[in-house]
Amino acid sequence: MTVSAKFNVNRAMCPSRLILEHVTSRWGVLVLATLIERPYRFSELRRAVDKVSEKMLAQTLQTLERDGFVHRDAKPVIPPHVEYSLTRLGHEAAEQVWGLARWTERRVPDVVKAREAYDEGRG
Amino acid sequence: MTVSAKFNVNRAMCPSRLILEHVTSRWGVLVLATLIERPYRFSELRRAVDKVSEKMLAQTLQTLERDGFVHRDAKPVIPPHVEYSLTRLGHEAAEQVWGLARWTERRVPDVVKAREAYDEGRG
Repeated sequence: MTVSAKFNVNRAMCPSRLILEHVTSRWGVLVLATLIERPYRFSELRRAVDKVSEKMLAQTLQTLERDGFVHRDAKPVIPPHVEYSLTRLGHEAAEQVWGLARWTERRVPDVVKAREAYDEGRG
Repeated sequence: MTVSAKFNVNRAMCPSRLILEHVTSRWGVLVLATLIERPYRFSELRRAVDKVSEKMLAQTLQTLERDGFVHRDAKPVIPPHVEYSLTRLGHEAAEQVWGLARWTERRVPDVVKAREAYDEGRG
C-alpha cells in the first residue's frame, strides 16, 4: 500500500481532507500565493490580500503555521516586528496554489465567455 | 500590459477571485479532481465524494458548468441518464487541483508532525 492509497481526500474522515481545506480556504490560497514572493509583515500582507479582515488573516496564518506551512518570526525589537514566511513544506503548497491563481487569471476571458453562453442557453 | 497583470486574484473586485473561489471551493476541488478520471453520473459522483449532500453537489456542478469547466450530458433515454464530464478548460483546472490533492495526501505525515511540534510549543 502506497502513501497515496493510504490517504484519500475523497474520504470525509481522512486527515488529508482537512489539510486540503486549509490550503484551499478562501484566504489560505491567497496568503500562500502571496508569500511565495517573499516574507511579509502582517500589515503588509493585509494590504496585499485585498478585503481580508484582521481577524481572518490572523486565523488563516495561525492555521497555516500550525500545519507547518508558515513560519512566524517575531523579532525582539521595539516596536514589535513580526514577519511571516513559507517553510519548505509551505513553499511546496504555495507553488501549487500559485500556479492555480495564475491559471485562473489567464482564463478569465474563457470563463466569462462560457457564462454568457450558459446564460443565453437558459434565457 | 499582459493578461496576468490585468487580472489579479488579490484584488477583491477582480473576476478572477470569484473563479478561483469556485475552483477551490470545498466541493469544487473534490469534484474536479474526481472527474479527471472519467465522466461520472450524479449518483456515482455523490458516492465518490464522501459526505457531499445532494444539494451541495448539484449546486457545485451547476457553478462549474456555468463557468465552462463541466459539461452536463443528459441522454434522452428512460430512465434519465445524466453524465458529467470535464471540458478542455475544466481539465486544465482539474489538473491543478488534482496535483494539489495528491500532494496533500503525500504530505499528511509532515503536517501531523508539524502540528505536534506546534501544540507542544504552546503546551
